[in-house]
Amino acid sequence: MTTQDEYFLREAIALAKRGMEANEGGPFGALVVRDGQIIGRGNNRVTSTNDPTAHAEVVAIRAACAALDSFQLTDCTIYSSCEPCPMCLGAIYWARPARLVYACSREDAAAIDFDDDFIYREIPLPAEERSIPTEQALREEGRVVFRAWRDKTDRQDY
Amino acid sequence: MTTQDEYFLREAIALAKRGMEANEGGPFGALVVRDGQIIGRGNNRVTSTNDPTAHAEVVAIRAACAALDSFQLTDCTIYSSCEPCPMCLGAIYWARPARLVYACSREDAAAIDFDDDFIYREIPLPAEERSIPTEQALREEGRVVFRAWRDKTDRQDY
Repeated sequence: MTTQDEYFLREAIALAKRGMEANEGGPFGALVVRDGQIIGRGNNRVTSTNDPTAHAEVVAIRAACAALDSFQLTDCTIYSSCEPCPMCLGAIYWARPARLVYACSREDAAAIDFDDDFIYREIPLPAEERSIPTEQALREEGRVVFRAWRDKTDRQDY
Repeated sequence: MTTQDEYFLREAIALAKRGMEANEGGPFGALVVRDGQIIGRGNNRVTSTNDPTAHAEVVAIRAACAALDSFQLTDCTIYSSCEPCPMCLGAIYWARPARLVYACSREDAAAIDFDDDFIYREIPLPAEERSIPTEQALREEGRVVFRAWRDKTDRQDY
């Protein structure tokens, strides 16, 4: 942790506060930094945009990727006011930044009634033990498309 | 599984095929159904929109929530051509549908070089054991905002 890290993490916390006060959503903020520059900002906007995926990190990642014209956040650091929930952590893995820095923990989020910790406990469970009823079917029909992807000569990997 | 379930799951697989053939992204499709009606469709658009979060399920959830003007997919079923990755499964938990049906498995996705299975193995790890370097700091400063949320009289929970 450098003083620059602390500066950016405080900025993520400030975004959380501002978004909450503006009634845009929950008390969460995030930003994406590359070469010492903020290239994407986000705060939770779930309730104001009716988008359950509009968490701070997802909003910041989408903004940063738009700014870079890239679906990868190579060499970037993501600062978040709270430990990312599994959805956001998954988004971070797909964006492939170099590093993640956060302030509050998932337990802090659980203490103000957010489901982060609950979802962390659900994700590793076998599908049949999760709280959302889940079924698998037509696997062979689905795999036909996967094989077509594998054999596609002009596919763009990601 | 009913014949209606099979119909919608085949439609999700068809969306996967169509999106892949149009070079919009990977071979994944999803849809959201309520009362026998499709209210949101999605296919992977990561590479065509430079958005690493534009997975089929996320796109379908966002579309369905926009159609319903709600951040919750109460009483809905999500059909996906593949087992959702952790990001999408997290998004599904936040959207709170009644049920999930999918075709291919995470192992099928891994077999055509997608990171789903890798990310499933990373998510449950302690932060210090994950492949993305992660640090926590300023937790107390972050918690000040969480306490303000807890005490906020006009907050909208989600």
